[in-house]
Amino acid sequence: MLEETGLDYERVTIDIRDPNVPRDPRFAAASPMGKVPALADGAVGLADSAAICMYLADRYPSCGLAPAVDDPRRGAYLYWMVYTPGVIEPAIAEHLNKMTPNRLSSGWGDFDAMIETLVAGLGDSPWILGDEFSAADVMLGSSAHFMKAFGLLPDVPALEAYRERCMERPACQRALAMETDEV
Amino acid sequence: MLEETGLDYERVTIDIRDPNVPRDPRFAAASPMGKVPALADGAVGLADSAAICMYLADRYPSCGLAPAVDDPRRGAYLYWMVYTPGVIEPAIAEHLNKMTPNRLSSGWGDFDAMIETLVAGLGDSPWILGDEFSAADVMLGSSAHFMKAFGLLPDVPALEAYRERCMERPACQRALAMETDEV
Repeated sequence: MLEETGLDYERVTIDIRDPNVPRDPRFAAASPMGKVPALADGAVGLADSAAICMYLADRYPSCGLAPAVDDPRRGAYLYWMVYTPGVIEPAIAEHLNKMTPNRLSSGWGDFDAMIETLVAGLGDSPWILGDEFSAADVMLGSSAHFMKAFGLLPDVPALEAYRERCMERPACQRALAMETDEV
Repeated sequence: MLEETGLDYERVTIDIRDPNVPRDPRFAAASPMGKVPALADGAVGLADSAAICMYLADRYPSCGLAPAVDDPRRGAYLYWMVYTPGVIEPAIAEHLNKMTPNRLSSGWGDFDAMIETLVAGLGDSPWILGDEFSAADVMLGSSAHFMKAFGLLPDVPALEAYRERCMERPACQRALAMETDEV
């Protein structure tokens, strides 16, 4: 997301498993549960990747990563921004634990409903909001990539094409190269 | 949330369990997974209660339910807006299914971490962002009320006091009265 914004930023890695490693004091303030990623931007601190993407896209609108507040696509944008933490991730957790959740009563339906809804949402468009890339694609493309990496992405050509389209973006390639350098 | 905004709105009930009941055509467009609540506002349609609250608070800023995009509290606001769908709800589902999730690897920690983080986040403040009520309290107060209704809210005085504070708001009382009338 930060590469997509084009903003200058400093990347700080942290070992969340070892509480004895000294931590950037901004981290505790930004991430109440000690999770990564977290972002510090002046007096602003926050965690949760969806919240971070929403923050950056609205705070730096010249990056063009979110429809404006009065844009008709704002509703779909927010829906898909919450889709990763609120639907994809719980559905994956239940799927991996071989649970058979109630599609109607749980907020995230079930794994199949999650995939079907995403595929239907994409339709024939390159990006989730249509012709224009947005922060929602940062979240959904990363989720598709995560599912692929763990052998969870169903063999749906439109979904695989979307995942590849997201991963091929120069910003994504730069971010992946950074992670590789750190290993 | 709509009562908190003071906006005029029309409330439409829908039976999501019976696909044979004719549905408002705006519903399918607004809610890709067929979940409630969903909101139609002119050309805008969306589902997911957190997304709806974020949409309304930013679209109608005179309601004063969200810190502005450049307000230092914007980060905490977005973090807590995502907390209900991304942390509280999956943590409850795992708790009810007697799973013992990995506090470090799952995005929502576990049930105890979810409660501890919420209690620490509130601290001695009346609302999650401090002295000022926001849409984040609509989400978190509703979650606390839901947990209480299902016997899941731990006996933490600060949390119970927060739940009561949220429920006692006139907007909440009006909304609850509507639901009671419909039963």
